[in-house]
Amino acid sequence: MSGYTKNIGPQSDIVISSRVRIARNLEGYPFTHNLNGDLAEDIAKKIDESILTANTKLSDDFKLISMKDLDQINRLNYVEKHLISLELANNVEIGNVIINTDETISIMINEEDHIRIQCMLPGLQLDEAWDIADKIDDLIEEKVNYAFDEEIGYITSCPTNLGTGVRASVMLHLPALSMIGYIKDILRAAGQIGLAVRGIYGEGSEFLGNLYQISNQVTLGVTEEEIIENLNSVTMQIIDKERMTRQNLLSIKKDELEDKVFRSYGILKNARIISANEAMKLISDVKLGVNLDLIKGLPIEKLNCMMEMIQPGFLQKYYDYALDTRNRDIKRAELIRKSLE
Amino acid sequence: MSGYTKNIGPQSDIVISSRVRIARNLEGYPFTHNLNGDLAEDIAKKIDESILTANTKLSDDFKLISMKDLDQINRLNYVEKHLISLELANNVEIGNVIINTDETISIMINEEDHIRIQCMLPGLQLDEAWDIADKIDDLIEEKVNYAFDEEIGYITSCPTNLGTGVRASVMLHLPALSMIGYIKDILRAAGQIGLAVRGIYGEGSEFLGNLYQISNQVTLGVTEEEIIENLNSVTMQIIDKERMTRQNLLSIKKDELEDKVFRSYGILKNARIISANEAMKLISDVKLGVNLDLIKGLPIEKLNCMMEMIQPGFLQKYYDYALDTRNRDIKRAELIRKSLE
Repeated sequence: MSGYTKNIGPQSDIVISSRVRIARNLEGYPFTHNLNGDLAEDIAKKIDESILTANTKLSDDFKLISMKDLDQINRLNYVEKHLISLELANNVEIGNVIINTDETISIMINEEDHIRIQCMLPGLQLDEAWDIADKIDDLIEEKVNYAFDEEIGYITSCPTNLGTGVRASVMLHLPALSMIGYIKDILRAAGQIGLAVRGIYGEGSEFLGNLYQISNQVTLGVTEEEIIENLNSVTMQIIDKERMTRQNLLSIKKDELEDKVFRSYGILKNARIISANEAMKLISDVKLGVNLDLIKGLPIEKLNCMMEMIQPGFLQKYYDYALDTRNRDIKRAELIRKSLE
Repeated sequence: MSGYTKNIGPQSDIVISSRVRIARNLEGYPFTHNLNGDLAEDIAKKIDESILTANTKLSDDFKLISMKDLDQINRLNYVEKHLISLELANNVEIGNVIINTDETISIMINEEDHIRIQCMLPGLQLDEAWDIADKIDDLIEEKVNYAFDEEIGYITSCPTNLGTGVRASVMLHLPALSMIGYIKDILRAAGQIGLAVRGIYGEGSEFLGNLYQISNQVTLGVTEEEIIENLNSVTMQIIDKERMTRQNLLSIKKDELEDKVFRSYGILKNARIISANEAMKLISDVKLGVNLDLIKGLPIEKLNCMMEMIQPGFLQKYYDYALDTRNRDIKRAELIRKSLE
């Protein structure tokens, strides 16, 4: 399990994780989609050296992994853990990633941009994640020249990342707001103030498990600090609303809530075949039950881990062989039962 | 719990209970629907005396209960236990019933007919139930004159009971045949050979919990022994088909079956609000699981009792106060959880 999954952070009743990623490109090289193998290798080597030879605690436990050295199951598992993007996983020939031991930091090389530094921490820790990512950015910049324009800022492959190249996001668990339908208003409001809302696996993915990933859309004409500050403040407002709604539901619909939560718990503990989508929904209910102290003695970290464990890549890695959908559904149910025993 | 619920009998993997009832009327009295209070009381007294003064082991533990001495909840509970009919429960002024201690025998007085003797035993015991009902019939006949016609046989209020006045029935649990849809053919075939198929609470009731009550429709022109024999043999054929289908499902769809059975078990053990209909469905699944040895250590009698316990009358009797639908759903869930602990 990743460090951001097996531990919990501030506001962990609602915030699963905070993530900051910085997009950078090297001066004098074509963008990744025009890169040939030699140049790509050159870039990977430069960045690897800038991290591994850096004289800092941070660099101690990094390792470089090439996509071509990973089989499909392991690549999928890294995507599920948000350590690499699907795009990098598909860049089998030239894609690389540098990851630290507890998997809170990953540096993708030759993704859409040459460099994508990412730091992911449990709970609401945007400032902390930003500090770490920023430090890595400085480390690398000591050794390489970034593509930079005085007026625009950092040059990126896609215009949506120009300027700061910074995208900050939080993963929120919003079961109560989803239940009463108020979530739609929040999504609309977020869009109006320049935030994007996505599901757990990025654009277009459904809001599986009532998980909502909220991130800044604007990277140009704002400072990094403004991006973090803005997202922090919106997140705190959403947290307040979700908490209030949970308490409201608890006071006016306690029996119904308890029924829903315990039925889901009962199904998770007993099912023999279960899809990832259904499992996400049920785990979401049980998480809410634990948060509201209806279910006792079940650590929330266990449920966060479970959301990661039930994904196809993890399952196949865990059982050490390729599984078709049906067998994944069976093994998923088995793993969930074992974990809840 | 009634004696036929808390114990199990032969073929108990499929047959819940066997029931034989005999309809009789006294000579010289109008049928019940034309009966005034004095005559009705007269009849009740005669029958009561014929049982209570009879010098036999059978009569030792009988007691007479007048409908007017029961409140609505207790009347409903007797209906749910099949000790009285809904019709008798509604005959508040003149309805009476004589019941033995373990509730396997009930003699309704002033129901549709003056006398309805009923014996209900666990499992497939039609012959035994007939023997007992027949003995009670003889006991009463020693003291009273039955309305009888040499050509037709026993005279009953409704023509469908003329002749023998005997209706035999079995309550079958047929989850596998229901699952594969084959049950429809069986119902059709049963109708063609003069059998009626009803749900657990008589005509028009749905097949709650995959329970099917099969009984003879013809009472005239056949002997009592033929009625019993015919129903016995059809029941054995249905039992064979259900058992075969269960084994088939187990061999070709074991995972799906196990999943269904355990999910239902998990919901029963965890729900906080549950309707009687849903509970019947889930208990049916769990019964199948126990029968197929998928669920271990759970006695089938407990599940049979549960099907009785979750009914509105029992619930209100158990909790000793009138409950509206919502509170019944909550108390039902509570009682089920307690029972499965």
